[in-house]
Amino acid sequence: MDAVADERIKSAHSAYESASRASPATRASWLEAIATGLESRSEELVGLAHGETRLAVPRLEGELRRTVFQLRLFAREVELGTDLDATIDHADPDWGMGPRPDLRRVNVPLGVVGVFGASNFPFAFSVAGGDTASALATGCAVVHKVHTAHEKLGEATAEIVIAALSDARAPEGLFSVIYGREAAISLVEHPLTAAVGFTGSTSVGRALFDRAAARPRPIPFFGELGSINPVIVTPGAWASRRRELIEGFAGSFTLGAGQFCTKPGLLFVPRGEDELAGILAAALAEFSVDGMLSPAIHRGFDAALEANRDEVGVTTLVEVDSSGVRATVLEIDADEVERHPAVLAREMFGPASLVIRYSHLTQVTRLIAQIEGQLTATLHAEATDDVEQLLEVLASKAGRVLWNGWPTGVTVSYAQQHGGPYPATTMPSSTSVGTSAMARFSRPVAFQAFPDAQLPEALQDRNPWGIRRRVDGVYQPEATSAQ
Amino acid sequence: MDAVADERIKSAHSAYESASRASPATRASWLEAIATGLESRSEELVGLAHGETRLAVPRLEGELRRTVFQLRLFAREVELGTDLDATIDHADPDWGMGPRPDLRRVNVPLGVVGVFGASNFPFAFSVAGGDTASALATGCAVVHKVHTAHEKLGEATAEIVIAALSDARAPEGLFSVIYGREAAISLVEHPLTAAVGFTGSTSVGRALFDRAAARPRPIPFFGELGSINPVIVTPGAWASRRRELIEGFAGSFTLGAGQFCTKPGLLFVPRGEDELAGILAAALAEFSVDGMLSPAIHRGFDAALEANRDEVGVTTLVEVDSSGVRATVLEIDADEVERHPAVLAREMFGPASLVIRYSHLTQVTRLIAQIEGQLTATLHAEATDDVEQLLEVLASKAGRVLWNGWPTGVTVSYAQQHGGPYPATTMPSSTSVGTSAMARFSRPVAFQAFPDAQLPEALQDRNPWGIRRRVDGVYQPEATSAQ
Repeated sequence: MDAVADERIKSAHSAYESASRASPATRASWLEAIATGLESRSEELVGLAHGETRLAVPRLEGELRRTVFQLRLFAREVELGTDLDATIDHADPDWGMGPRPDLRRVNVPLGVVGVFGASNFPFAFSVAGGDTASALATGCAVVHKVHTAHEKLGEATAEIVIAALSDARAPEGLFSVIYGREAAISLVEHPLTAAVGFTGSTSVGRALFDRAAARPRPIPFFGELGSINPVIVTPGAWASRRRELIEGFAGSFTLGAGQFCTKPGLLFVPRGEDELAGILAAALAEFSVDGMLSPAIHRGFDAALEANRDEVGVTTLVEVDSSGVRATVLEIDADEVERHPAVLAREMFGPASLVIRYSHLTQVTRLIAQIEGQLTATLHAEATDDVEQLLEVLASKAGRVLWNGWPTGVTVSYAQQHGGPYPATTMPSSTSVGTSAMARFSRPVAFQAFPDAQLPEALQDRNPWGIRRRVDGVYQPEATSAQ
Repeated sequence: MDAVADERIKSAHSAYESASRASPATRASWLEAIATGLESRSEELVGLAHGETRLAVPRLEGELRRTVFQLRLFAREVELGTDLDATIDHADPDWGMGPRPDLRRVNVPLGVVGVFGASNFPFAFSVAGGDTASALATGCAVVHKVHTAHEKLGEATAEIVIAALSDARAPEGLFSVIYGREAAISLVEHPLTAAVGFTGSTSVGRALFDRAAARPRPIPFFGELGSINPVIVTPGAWASRRRELIEGFAGSFTLGAGQFCTKPGLLFVPRGEDELAGILAAALAEFSVDGMLSPAIHRGFDAALEANRDEVGVTTLVEVDSSGVRATVLEIDADEVERHPAVLAREMFGPASLVIRYSHLTQVTRLIAQIEGQLTATLHAEATDDVEQLLEVLASKAGRVLWNGWPTGVTVSYAQQHGGPYPATTMPSSTSVGTSAMARFSRPVAFQAFPDAQLPEALQDRNPWGIRRRVDGVYQPEATSAQ
């Protein structure tokens, strides 16, 4: 047991015991305080992030803006009480299965949540990112493992979060950070850790998932792991707007040096003579990066790229070097993939993608049916295309399906779903982006036949918190309206 | 791989692919058909159940009534579309973090669900029980492992369910049953199994959970395992209505020969001279059972009872034999429990309970803080008692907290929560009873920028299914009202 982790987790648990009693308004004020704190030091944070991650400044500014917005959107959602899902069934002597007692249910926070920051989103999926916001929103405490790729930024961000929470009079220890592998393992295995949120590679994620499942008391492990994000272009779309599609593809798979969990890693296009290589080469001529997030990620990218290149039937369509990072498009015929499907499951985390040339959409449907769970799947089609069956298969594989768009770009909203069947995530019913992300870190408790005064506020008759509730099966008009 | 299980699971998967497209009205009609089928042969089913389980006929009649009611309540809920959680965010160029695309989310069924029937509820937690109803309601297929304690009943019930689904034109193979240990393991490990619902012992449940987690593609395992269900009586309540409480306790822990997951296994009462033993003996004088559910359960009960009796400081308060089944109340002082807490974690699955004599409620709070997760926790108190801190600890440990009631009796309603932290369940955010039980077997899919005609019906602008939806953060008035 790592001593620092042990101490942080114990403090966090004490803080959670207070936080679990906090009103929605109080919890919302914590999120607001963090948002304001981040804004007030945004220039410094972006500078630190750029220095450590080599990601472009405008991208980092946008990511920080998104992170601040996310905290505020969650604050508004908490005020509505959506996360509490308060449900009241009054006693009913005539209930169909026999007399029903008064029964009222509300969500309570799980406890201490261990959060693992991601390398590729130093703000949105790191110290003050979506997992932290989700957990604090519901009244959980957070112990955050800072990613080694941006530890200075992590330290500075943590300082801001801790000061903001202190100013907002949140319980001491509600948020803290730890560093290093030993502390990370202690975080997953500590008896007081109640759940884990993780974003990272399939190999590391699975190893931690296995530890979480093997505990004497297993805990929920919300891991977002790997995704290849297939994109399919129908013959109709390919015929009508090929150039636009190729340019969009080039922009999407190289965005942030391809270091996105939603990077399009497979592009299915029809067989035939076309200008794909030429248009791609032109679109990638300006490819320019400062490097990758870390030497380890760079090595992993090169290894996966070469492994795919070595598969039977794979050729290199385009390759452009910038600072030693090779933006690459490989190509293979779908018939070869049917014989050697390994390329359907090998993620290249970096600016590379594989074009698969198909004979007919039924062949694509057959291949997609073989792939693993995905965060996203995309279809570029014309309105008149017959794609019903293909769309069904795409929806059966992915958490988000896009029509005529590119998957790199994940809005934070009510309907967002950033998740999917394994290995996209370890919990297919969960999302790590959007307001539903909060649902991961609470559990329901029902109170049977309680006197009103002894009930939690959320369930008292007069609805002191003015939250949305369902009463005797009927959703009540909202006390407050969204936005 | 068990050949029969393999064949059933493959058929189930094909059926799920059709079922996942079914409208709420169609899915509701399947549940209705099963309910009607069970009703039409209720006498035969109760007879079979009595022969195999030795549970009393009136209890079995009530349980079957509850099972039929549950199917119909879920059908009504499906018609409302609650399980779909349809959420629509229109495109918004002014969205705070940058332009938002049109994004719409709906829940889709997970796939083939493996369901393990319980020994102690031959109807409500077996072939046509809550797990099956939940899974079919959402459009999943079910392969049900029949419990060895009532295989004839299981076969007859399965026949009814399969015939009802066929009459209702559900896809063939949507529901099937398997028997035996080898088939059970295949069900958990089969690549096409997408989730498991289990009710049973902690040892068997944990072994299956471990297999589900160790798969190449881990799947959600919704296990309801062990619970001891502490009941606490305050000094005030003990002084004012001791006789009534003791009689209520005797009735609750012996109900169904104590073979309930919600049986009160610990009763905390104040120290002191009282008539506990005498009143208990009188209340248990009429104790009469035909035996236990199975010889294995009987052996397990005797072993746990003797293990608790052997703990330092434990004495026998009352013991009454009926057909070789010993209704037993043990007693121990809370000071001894503080020194030897093993009794706080040893479930006696049968008609036995342990009375713990405490000095002060703060001692009870300290002991409850040590117990594992529970399905229920109960407080008997007077309105004027100061029990705030104790209630907080109880809510932190259990899925359902009762005030002045007994935990054996679980209504099926909107607010019900039958779950709790491990080992009560393997998934603390889930319930296996009540309409929220459906949420276990679906996952969300978001559709980005889709033309209306290509969207699933649940998300189309005109709302063809007339379901409840959230649009741009605002919950819409319901198209249909509950009940």
